[in-house]
Amino acid sequence: MRARAKTRRMALNEPEFIAALRKLPLHTGARNLDDDCALITIGGETLVINHEMMAEDTHFLPDADMADVAWKLVASNLSDLAAKGAEPIGVLLGHSLGRDDARFIKGLREALIAFGVTLLGGDTVAATGASTFAMTAIGRATHHPVPARRGAAVGDGIYLTGTIGRAMLGFEGASEHRDAFNRPQPRIAEGLTLAPHVSAMMDVSDGLLLDCWRMAKLNSVTFMIDPDAVPVADAARRDECMRWGDDYELLFTAPAEAALPVAASRIGAVVAAGIAPLMLGGALLVSPDGLGYQHG
Amino acid sequence: MRARAKTRRMALNEPEFIAALRKLPLHTGARNLDDDCALITIGGETLVINHEMMAEDTHFLPDADMADVAWKLVASNLSDLAAKGAEPIGVLLGHSLGRDDARFIKGLREALIAFGVTLLGGDTVAATGASTFAMTAIGRATHHPVPARRGAAVGDGIYLTGTIGRAMLGFEGASEHRDAFNRPQPRIAEGLTLAPHVSAMMDVSDGLLLDCWRMAKLNSVTFMIDPDAVPVADAARRDECMRWGDDYELLFTAPAEAALPVAASRIGAVVAAGIAPLMLGGALLVSPDGLGYQHG
Repeated sequence: MRARAKTRRMALNEPEFIAALRKLPLHTGARNLDDDCALITIGGETLVINHEMMAEDTHFLPDADMADVAWKLVASNLSDLAAKGAEPIGVLLGHSLGRDDARFIKGLREALIAFGVTLLGGDTVAATGASTFAMTAIGRATHHPVPARRGAAVGDGIYLTGTIGRAMLGFEGASEHRDAFNRPQPRIAEGLTLAPHVSAMMDVSDGLLLDCWRMAKLNSVTFMIDPDAVPVADAARRDECMRWGDDYELLFTAPAEAALPVAASRIGAVVAAGIAPLMLGGALLVSPDGLGYQHG
Repeated sequence: MRARAKTRRMALNEPEFIAALRKLPLHTGARNLDDDCALITIGGETLVINHEMMAEDTHFLPDADMADVAWKLVASNLSDLAAKGAEPIGVLLGHSLGRDDARFIKGLREALIAFGVTLLGGDTVAATGASTFAMTAIGRATHHPVPARRGAAVGDGIYLTGTIGRAMLGFEGASEHRDAFNRPQPRIAEGLTLAPHVSAMMDVSDGLLLDCWRMAKLNSVTFMIDPDAVPVADAARRDECMRWGDDYELLFTAPAEAALPVAASRIGAVVAAGIAPLMLGGALLVSPDGLGYQHG
């Protein structure tokens, strides 16, 4: 029991762990770990790099089709590149052998072909217990400065591509939304087109309200969101749609006068920091609790 | 039982999985997945990228000090960059929360500082069961062509930096070799210096004989190794030293007349392909079985 207690004491939750990482020697391209991607500037070009892990029980259920898991691993990585306006170059895979590997390969192939991306390399391990997969996606920045979570300014509009809540409905079994959950489509083309127009951008994989809260907090502003302006897949469940994750749409801010080159809904406005980072309708949302999916 | 049988049938071993990956859309910089690193050429520069996973039970024991595990994760990634003559730029970490995270951070910090590398970013997940860690290391190629596992030519000498078997003795508890196992030193400086001189290069993390066998096989030649010329940490256990892994020395071939800029032992010669990829003393080693540590 002593050993167990010691282990517990030294385990950190995700915010604590990231805070500890911030005290390590960081590359300037790590942008203080505030963003989803790192930047490497070399030979006059900027590479945009994202790394994601997916773990059984946390990110997928033990009975999930591994072809869908592989697809989502690729899609979630490319979604982060999309939010930086990066053109994908390739991905590296970290794969735990042992469960439906052939299905995994099938989904990986389908995703690579669908998104026009190639495999660069990776590593394969024999692991015991629950499966964990890792992926590093590398892209080329197409616009400078590279869009970041930072940059939202008072007076900007707040925008969202597509409709949220579809992944939730698909997870629940609605056949017309099943692909939204199992085979999400990262907004690569939209991200490339939007990059020159946005003041800040991220994908909303953890839930719209949580990601709005985080972006507002990071920028020391308040996001005033009009819930009725948010395009949801089920209007009767608007609140749930805004809190569920896995939709992989793009959330961005842009000057109010910007002529946007892609279809996007204006869901609110950036205002000076108030008591809460987020105002939803008239409600002040001070804490991120209950706004979306928080890891760890 | 039916589901179980189905899962088993679809599980692949490492060679099968890599063979399946080779049929996916590959980046040219993946070099057909024959090498340990991928290459991305951009803006007149070449980036060298390596991805490694480490899994509990497979790569480290459940009671391992997580500071050592973090150190080895960095060291093993940088060892692969070293074998390509790459100057490290930074690393991305994939971390499963939950066990001695503070120790992990401590070892990570020590490794980053010791090797002069910075953290670029990464991802943190809450995972159940055994821990899995991932790392992507990115470096800048300093010599073209970038050294590869391919390139060994008949007539070349076969060389090894340092002494092997130290990690084995350290694992067993020999105090003077404990750091060789727990805190290995990738040969970054040696790799940079050697890159212009070698015809092929790799690190020997899986065991000298196995890696010699693999390099010979890939190049369709035979490696003729003189066992008495191999510098081992315990001469009485020469065979074991040549088969144990985790030493992170550099194995390379170079023209016989090459003047090498670093200390290295000439352990054999590249000859035309015979019956076996490897000749050890007079023995023909046809199969890789028993030559080192084979994953999966």
